[in-house]
Amino acid sequence: MKPVLRAAIVAVGSELLTPSRIDTNSLFITEKLNALGVDVILKAVVGDDRDELAQVVRLAMTRADLVVCCGGLGPTDDDVTRDVVAGVVGRRLQEDLAMTERLRVRFAARFAGAMPEINRRQAMVPEGARVLENLHGSAPGLWIEAEDKVVLLLPGPPRELKPMVEHLMSGLLHEHTAGRALVRRVLKVAGRIESQTEEVLRPLYARWRQWAIPVDATILASLGQLELHLSARAAMRDQAADALRRAAQDVVDVLGLDVFSTDGQDLEEVLGDLLVARGERIALAESCTGGLIASRLTDVAGSSRYLERGVVVYSNEAKTDLLGVPAALIAEHGAVSEPVGQAMAEGIRARAKVSIGVGVTGIAGPGGGSEAKPVGTVVIAAVTNDSARVRTFHFRGERDQVKSQAAQAAIDMVRRLLLSTV
Amino acid sequence: MKPVLRAAIVAVGSELLTPSRIDTNSLFITEKLNALGVDVILKAVVGDDRDELAQVVRLAMTRADLVVCCGGLGPTDDDVTRDVVAGVVGRRLQEDLAMTERLRVRFAARFAGAMPEINRRQAMVPEGARVLENLHGSAPGLWIEAEDKVVLLLPGPPRELKPMVEHLMSGLLHEHTAGRALVRRVLKVAGRIESQTEEVLRPLYARWRQWAIPVDATILASLGQLELHLSARAAMRDQAADALRRAAQDVVDVLGLDVFSTDGQDLEEVLGDLLVARGERIALAESCTGGLIASRLTDVAGSSRYLERGVVVYSNEAKTDLLGVPAALIAEHGAVSEPVGQAMAEGIRARAKVSIGVGVTGIAGPGGGSEAKPVGTVVIAAVTNDSARVRTFHFRGERDQVKSQAAQAAIDMVRRLLLSTV
Repeated sequence: MKPVLRAAIVAVGSELLTPSRIDTNSLFITEKLNALGVDVILKAVVGDDRDELAQVVRLAMTRADLVVCCGGLGPTDDDVTRDVVAGVVGRRLQEDLAMTERLRVRFAARFAGAMPEINRRQAMVPEGARVLENLHGSAPGLWIEAEDKVVLLLPGPPRELKPMVEHLMSGLLHEHTAGRALVRRVLKVAGRIESQTEEVLRPLYARWRQWAIPVDATILASLGQLELHLSARAAMRDQAADALRRAAQDVVDVLGLDVFSTDGQDLEEVLGDLLVARGERIALAESCTGGLIASRLTDVAGSSRYLERGVVVYSNEAKTDLLGVPAALIAEHGAVSEPVGQAMAEGIRARAKVSIGVGVTGIAGPGGGSEAKPVGTVVIAAVTNDSARVRTFHFRGERDQVKSQAAQAAIDMVRRLLLSTV
Repeated sequence: MKPVLRAAIVAVGSELLTPSRIDTNSLFITEKLNALGVDVILKAVVGDDRDELAQVVRLAMTRADLVVCCGGLGPTDDDVTRDVVAGVVGRRLQEDLAMTERLRVRFAARFAGAMPEINRRQAMVPEGARVLENLHGSAPGLWIEAEDKVVLLLPGPPRELKPMVEHLMSGLLHEHTAGRALVRRVLKVAGRIESQTEEVLRPLYARWRQWAIPVDATILASLGQLELHLSARAAMRDQAADALRRAAQDVVDVLGLDVFSTDGQDLEEVLGDLLVARGERIALAESCTGGLIASRLTDVAGSSRYLERGVVVYSNEAKTDLLGVPAALIAEHGAVSEPVGQAMAEGIRARAKVSIGVGVTGIAGPGGGSEAKPVGTVVIAAVTNDSARVRTFHFRGERDQVKSQAAQAAIDMVRRLLLSTV
């Protein structure tokens, strides 16, 4: 049998097609399969419907070497996976009498009664299939080899599915995969837009594809940052990891300081590490971000070492009272202005007696905008002992998007300021 | 054209096949389609792969009346959706010159530079398709009618996809659907656990199933709150909505003040409405929540009317300096103690000159715990002109989970305090 390289995952259950439920088993399974060098090329969710499931399994078998079906192995009428898959691979179902006996014993032990006849369905096994013991529930898993492919049926509840997959990792799955490890690495970039970055990086992509261990790249844009997902496959995990390390260095050589993370770290973690390394402390004066910067910084364990304090100063009185921003300065330039932003940063720095102060003032919307200062106008200032930066941004989007972009830009401004003042 | 009754949703993007990313757009789309009486019968996730996507779209078109594809509409080489779908429905792509011009203008306005040539790909439109304007990004959506089916292409980023779907709800989607409206209503509950609540509500579920328009209920637990999802289906939207209104009232009769929202509102919105209605203002003193409470309150538009200020006071000096908490009090009881929590709430209330003060001090972890005060110990205090509450909580989970539960409990404590002091 040829080794399993490509897998499809099919989640079965009508509840997974409602607005409030999501299939998360596939994330766990993907992680495990990737570790064995197996790529997941397709995921699907179908209801408890025979036709739908049969069609999807048939399609998946044309594309993948391994089709993993999760769920629909229970004893009731709407548990159709066993039947449907047996039909697709052309195998009859036979009762596994030893399994029936195990089910009866399990049932008696747990519920102190006779097993309902419908539970015998769980002992029906397609001819030639291997039965996978379920240590945490009644539905056994099934491993079916057919037409040079494998179809693996797993119970839906995560507490039953996960141990079964773990067990397969060193057993059947291990035997059937080639063992080429798939390794990933995520780089994160601030201050750039997707299409321009893609143009700059394209020559690298072409070069990486020629390497002995080729590196694949995908770029993803989200609010205030880009993510570059790199992946490589090699016989040994270390070889793939090494190729990714070299590719990451190529990106840093081209994009420089805009790359804030070469191994998946979030911006607030990167800033935290910088502050700890330099032994510096920071204080925040937030208006329009409303505490979001403080909350992001304090998401990092150990942030109490470097975040001395933060204040959320919505009102002008609070700006004067808590930061010493002169009322006359606010009257002259307006609360959303570079002089006020800088005075906020300097005020919090002085009062908190730390080396770095940050001030953010802006209009998050939906109200409060004007022609001169529309919604999305945000002033960000960062001051240290010997340097200061202040800049006016114009963000787009809804209130929470303006807050989120402003927080990202402020944390990034501090990072750049620290890196440029060694 | 026959009405759309069954839909399939296809998410496109290799990143959605990795262990760390999940498609959530389909939940939003499902909710909206359900509201128009359309059932989602299949969901799939495929990578940026032409063959895979073509096969899945072909299968989806045999099963569903409407196929919604999300993502893969960007300007780069790995954005294949437009091309592939045009191929599947047998339509040539033509450049929409007006669209190219709009893209150039948009690009110039945002990035003050010439548009890279690759962005022109986003103006390629299959013959006969309708272009759906994207107010929040460059990739337009596309509505393609073919073989008695509709294929709808939407951009992947939620901030672009959601407004486009909202717009279609009263436009093309509305025109192409018929039938029984499926209406949902979400109630939110604080201060209760799932299994007990389920037991209390079970008699209601049984009664609702007997109604002329039956109401379905599902309970979902998340950090710090329960959600009760009610749904009903009727020929007229109003009939279903009315059944849900009566069911919601039944729940309030049983659970009382624990129900903080009967129509999906978040806790911070509910508190905001209460504060506005009473003309009161609030100020926050946060230690272990690190600004999260302020950030949640300021997510609500108009929160500047009632949030006077917030301070994030990690250090003992900041607690004394900004809130007037006596150093001796901290020395005597420890920073995480009811006397200090209450002094924080009283301090911020007095200094901000508002009617309500909140103080939160605790141990978010992973470090800082002791036998007497383990990680997860959080003191929350709320004081008004004439009342005060202070309580010590013991939350479980990781740092961010402790932060999140503490913020929820604090906002809920203020809500209950206001409702009990009319």
